[in-house]
Amino acid sequence: MDLPFDGEITRFFEEGVPKDVRTAIEEAGKNDVLGFEYPYATRMDKDNYEDQLEALQVELVKMQDWLDRSDERLVLVFEGRDAAGKGGSISRLTMNLNPRAAHTVALGKPTERERGEWYFQRYVPHLPTTSEMTVFDRSWYNRGVVEKVFGFVDDPSRERFFEQVSDFERLLVRDGIRMWKFWLNVSRAEQLRRILARERDPLKQWKLSRIDVEGLALWDAYTGAIEETLERSHTAHAPWTVIRADDKRRARLAVIRSVLAPLPYDGKDEALVGAPDPAIAGGPDLWVRQTGW
Amino acid sequence: MDLPFDGEITRFFEEGVPKDVRTAIEEAGKNDVLGFEYPYATRMDKDNYEDQLEALQVELVKMQDWLDRSDERLVLVFEGRDAAGKGGSISRLTMNLNPRAAHTVALGKPTERERGEWYFQRYVPHLPTTSEMTVFDRSWYNRGVVEKVFGFVDDPSRERFFEQVSDFERLLVRDGIRMWKFWLNVSRAEQLRRILARERDPLKQWKLSRIDVEGLALWDAYTGAIEETLERSHTAHAPWTVIRADDKRRARLAVIRSVLAPLPYDGKDEALVGAPDPAIAGGPDLWVRQTGW
Amino acid sequence: MDLPFDGEITRFFEEGVPKDVRTAIEEAGKNDVLGFEYPYATRMDKDNYEDQLEALQVELVKMQDWLDRSDERLVLVFEGRDAAGKGGSISRLTMNLNPRAAHTVALGKPTERERGEWYFQRYVPHLPTTSEMTVFDRSWYNRGVVEKVFGFVDDPSRERFFEQVSDFERLLVRDGIRMWKFWLNVSRAEQLRRILARERDPLKQWKLSRIDVEGLALWDAYTGAIEETLERSHTAHAPWTVIRADDKRRARLAVIRSVLAPLPYDGKDEALVGAPDPAIAGGPDLWVRQTGW
Amino acid sequence: MDLPFDGEITRFFEEGVPKDVRTAIEEAGKNDVLGFEYPYATRMDKDNYEDQLEALQVELVKMQDWLDRSDERLVLVFEGRDAAGKGGSISRLTMNLNPRAAHTVALGKPTERERGEWYFQRYVPHLPTTSEMTVFDRSWYNRGVVEKVFGFVDDPSRERFFEQVSDFERLLVRDGIRMWKFWLNVSRAEQLRRILARERDPLKQWKLSRIDVEGLALWDAYTGAIEETLERSHTAHAPWTVIRADDKRRARLAVIRSVLAPLPYDGKDEALVGAPDPAIAGGPDLWVRQTGW
Ligand SMILES: Nc1ncnc2c1ncn2[C@@H]1O[C@H](COP(=O)(O)OP(=O)(O)O)[C@@H](O)[C@H]1O
Ligand SMILES: Nc1ncnc2c1ncn2[C@@H]1O[C@H](COP(=O)(O)OP(=O)(O)O)[C@@H](O)[C@H]1O
Ligand SMILES: Nc1ncnc2c1ncn2[C@@H]1O[C@H](COP(=O)(O)OP(=O)(O)O)[C@@H](O)[C@H]1O
Ligand SMILES: Nc1ncnc2c1ncn2[C@@H]1O[C@H](COP(=O)(O)O)[C@@H](O)[C@H]1O
Repeated sequence: MDLPFDGEITRFFEEGVPKDVRTAIEEAGKNDVLGFEYPYATRMDKDNYEDQLEALQVELVKMQDWLDRSDERLVLVFEGRDAAGKGGSISRLTMNLNPRAAHTVALGKPTERERGEWYFQRYVPHLPTTSEMTVFDRSWYNRGVVEKVFGFVDDPSRERFFEQVSDFERLLVRDGIRMWKFWLNVSRAEQLRRILARERDPLKQWKLSRIDVEGLALWDAYTGAIEETLERSHTAHAPWTVIRADDKRRARLAVIRSVLAPLPYDGKDEALVGAPDPAIAGGPDLWVRQTGW
Repeated sequence: MDLPFDGEITRFFEEGVPKDVRTAIEEAGKNDVLGFEYPYATRMDKDNYEDQLEALQVELVKMQDWLDRSDERLVLVFEGRDAAGKGGSISRLTMNLNPRAAHTVALGKPTERERGEWYFQRYVPHLPTTSEMTVFDRSWYNRGVVEKVFGFVDDPSRERFFEQVSDFERLLVRDGIRMWKFWLNVSRAEQLRRILARERDPLKQWKLSRIDVEGLALWDAYTGAIEETLERSHTAHAPWTVIRADDKRRARLAVIRSVLAPLPYDGKDEALVGAPDPAIAGGPDLWVRQTGW
Repeated sequence: MDLPFDGEITRFFEEGVPKDVRTAIEEAGKNDVLGFEYPYATRMDKDNYEDQLEALQVELVKMQDWLDRSDERLVLVFEGRDAAGKGGSISRLTMNLNPRAAHTVALGKPTERERGEWYFQRYVPHLPTTSEMTVFDRSWYNRGVVEKVFGFVDDPSRERFFEQVSDFERLLVRDGIRMWKFWLNVSRAEQLRRILARERDPLKQWKLSRIDVEGLALWDAYTGAIEETLERSHTAHAPWTVIRADDKRRARLAVIRSVLAPLPYDGKDEALVGAPDPAIAGGPDLWVRQTGW
Repeated sequence: MDLPFDGEITRFFEEGVPKDVRTAIEEAGKNDVLGFEYPYATRMDKDNYEDQLEALQVELVKMQDWLDRSDERLVLVFEGRDAAGKGGSISRLTMNLNPRAAHTVALGKPTERERGEWYFQRYVPHLPTTSEMTVFDRSWYNRGVVEKVFGFVDDPSRERFFEQVSDFERLLVRDGIRMWKFWLNVSRAEQLRRILARERDPLKQWKLSRIDVEGLALWDAYTGAIEETLERSHTAHAPWTVIRADDKRRARLAVIRSVLAPLPYDGKDEALVGAPDPAIAGGPDLWVRQTGW
């Protein structure tokens, strides 16, 4: 099989990590979580997951029904390292919602013209109108993390971003938009395992980009940029929810519960929705600093 | 001649204003300014005006040349009552500039979808990128004035506008955008004279809208809304420049000088540009409260 | 359970169809196909389907890889009655493709402004650029069928559509765009079974619209409009592929094979792709006229 | 004075043309027309021109009034060599029309993305809706002329353009759009005189582009491309109107009369509108082949 990027990911796996990490990845069973300081040893049981997911999706549909008849607007921001599970969480969240009312926005790199504009400008047209929900798969926080790590932004511009971001979000929140900001946290070995799997899966190879491949060796630079970003943009009006995402199943349920919990929609099954698992979803203190291997 | 709006403007002129106002308007010579407490009795001499205007337009062209080679962005906001001269000032300002770099934006009333969005959302896509200038012919300040006077906005939404507008403008200014906000002040008799002239000029009748016609009787409501708006949105980072616009010629020159004065473009003729006439352009204290006739 | 549309679908099922149709729907086993003159009695075996689907998706990924490096452009049009399976076929086709290169477009009803434009105007901006694929989930053929059946179009405008559609498509095809037009054919009982299932599935109720509900009683009007449309728009340069879609599995495989078969991508597994099942995919003669129950 | 393009235009004037052409240009009086085989020796009298222009603009306003209450759509295409007077004609035509209903569209060079699209795609979104008029200042005919002359298009793509353009226009015309295509014809010396004037006028220098400067030496290549374009795209449904534009005044009046003549608007002053001067406006046979100096 032809590997993408000339097998650079496999090479990193073979030469860039200590032998015991390699062994751990190779020997991990399907249900083992490779998480670092992860609160659970194995992933959630499949049947349990599917039952809860389906029940929660019915709740999401009720919620959308309420949204449709209300004048509310919802914004969800998903951030996290490559392969943290942003896309999968978003698709579980939106798969049974009306696409006319629930938009997912994944912007590519800025055009020349956009590069000269107010940094937030290209995101604004996607904000929801009454009865809509916009899900940002990556967002303006690119400037805090990936742009920093890859040198796509100079320091003064990044400072300007941090000076503006809370004000920008406050404008939206004061305008009545409800906002969730999810930071999906994945551990180093689990990330590598997922990226290796993508490298070998012909159906998923297209998801890999140069950024993903080169990012593998930039773990610590990411760590620094993420910590700074979380710290400087966690505000009362627009707080971060960190999701420990080494087990995708628990992560997806926690995301959906986080969205549903505060919403007063009709026919809500409070017992079912409850609150997200506090070992999985929480404030920035839940973010796990992991350095080296 | 068929008058637009069934001659409602003429009727207002004949029945809605005291006889001496009518006489004053009828007898005003071409060069008389009908201004209230206006600092000059007659309008500026035509030749003098044209000479200055042409020289200033050469400066504008130099300025654009500088803009083109810089990474600056300019935003100009024009506000003022109907017939205050916004359109004419804008056209004198932009007529010799490259339309690809100097855009004028005059948005119509919001669509249903826009009505549900963040109030500033529909203005944002028009903000300039590097080396561009955006001129707003009416702007987000509609919410402060015309929407209030005509009941197009409820009070809580208008409050929300005032809570947000300074933050919104600060974001732009902090991002490096240079912003001018011009409030063109026109006196009651002069406004009526201009609107009467439009009513009778087949080439200009299309400029008249229901809003203009009904607005004639709403002078005092406008006054209150304007005063409140000026007061609540005059900030250090985005101050208002009030332009006394009863004499269109002086107003246009003052606008152009206000734009050019702070800009460090190459080959600037400082003596020519100088500063705008302080009797014509200034802070909110230059705004003239006129009630009754 | 609260049924959408006050249970109108169930009512139609109970009162609008002969008893034996009702019984047939009620007694149909999971694997029975309720098709009319359908070439197979039961649906395709699940394992067989999944194996083929997965293998074909790998082919789709190879195809996209080729597309990415070529200057080709692909347009796929999906039409068919409500619940014919357009959405499901499209999602199987695109689920492993890069969303930046494979867009699905499902336009809502035209706005006031669009209603006054050239009928094809609102579709044009979605046409693909080099290396892209656009999938239209419903398309300009709305004017041929649903707009006719529901009286959203007057007859002269519809005539104008038919006069233009072949020329419009020829322009695109001559320009080098490859185009597929799929008409998904579903039988009356199978359609009703699916719409009933949606009515009862809380996760799918949002998919139901007034058009679906009222359309149930308009089967024959649809039949006439579809036949006319197929006949008048089946051209050498842009032929229709009719897909017998009573068995969703066979339909999806046939769609994917129809797309892949003519494309000269690298590494193509010709044996696997082969040609679509001729009993399932073919020209307009495969379309099945079914009237009454 | 600093000349743009390092004085390349003046250099062309001094070194690229025969001495007698230079003398002719230098000695031409303000009112002399430098036209080649032009039907009039001097330009139209100013007062006569202004009287007619103003009266015709009143007609244009009436026309727009009619347009506003009708369901008509108008498209005007303006083509011609650099400095032929497209911009000036357009501005005289639209200056008293409501900008919300009469749009002028001057597209820049295509972006990368647009280059890969169907050639007509980027023009389509600007087509008018009911009661609107779109004026194209340059148009899809770029492909026939400037793109050919400057090598921005390869021959097969240009052939494809010619194969498509009549079909494209027929679609629009059959859809009910009224279309005018104006080709402004300017003679060689008159063009040079105008471009020289721009070079020296600080208010107009920005209008000059590399294309204009380099185009001066490419007169004959332009001639060939224009003749071919006129010939291949002059159709019964979308004929060309050639305007002899060496006298700007006569040209502008002829353009406006060409637009108004066929329109059945209320209160039309038939005597005033009449028909355009047949020595100034006509079919492609009016186009003047001029080679060498
Ligand atoms: N040159 C660049 N400048 C700014 N941002 C960039 C640049 N290149 C990539 N990015 C951003 O980095 C993020 C990660 O890129 P990539 O891995 O290619 O995309 P994705 O994770 O969405 O598949 C994206 O949001 C992309 O927009
Ligand atoms: N229903 C409305 N809601 C909000 N704003 C409106 C509404 N109707 C008119 N306006 C605004 O009032 C302003 C004045 O209207 P009008 O006199 O018609 O326009 P203009 O002065 O630009 O010709 C415009 O900016 C318009 O957008
Ligand atoms: N690289 C290019 N490819 C295609 N068209 C181009 C290119 N460069 C310029 N043009 C077109 O040539 C025409 C003349 O260009 P220019 O003289 O710069 O503009 P204008 O006459 O509108 O001021 C324009 O319509 C422009 O879009
Ligand atoms: N008023 C309308 N005019 C034209 N098309 C419509 C109208 N209402 C619905 N449609 C179209 O009918 C199709 C089915 O509608 P729906 O089931 O509501 O998605 C969609 O493609 C709609 O765009």
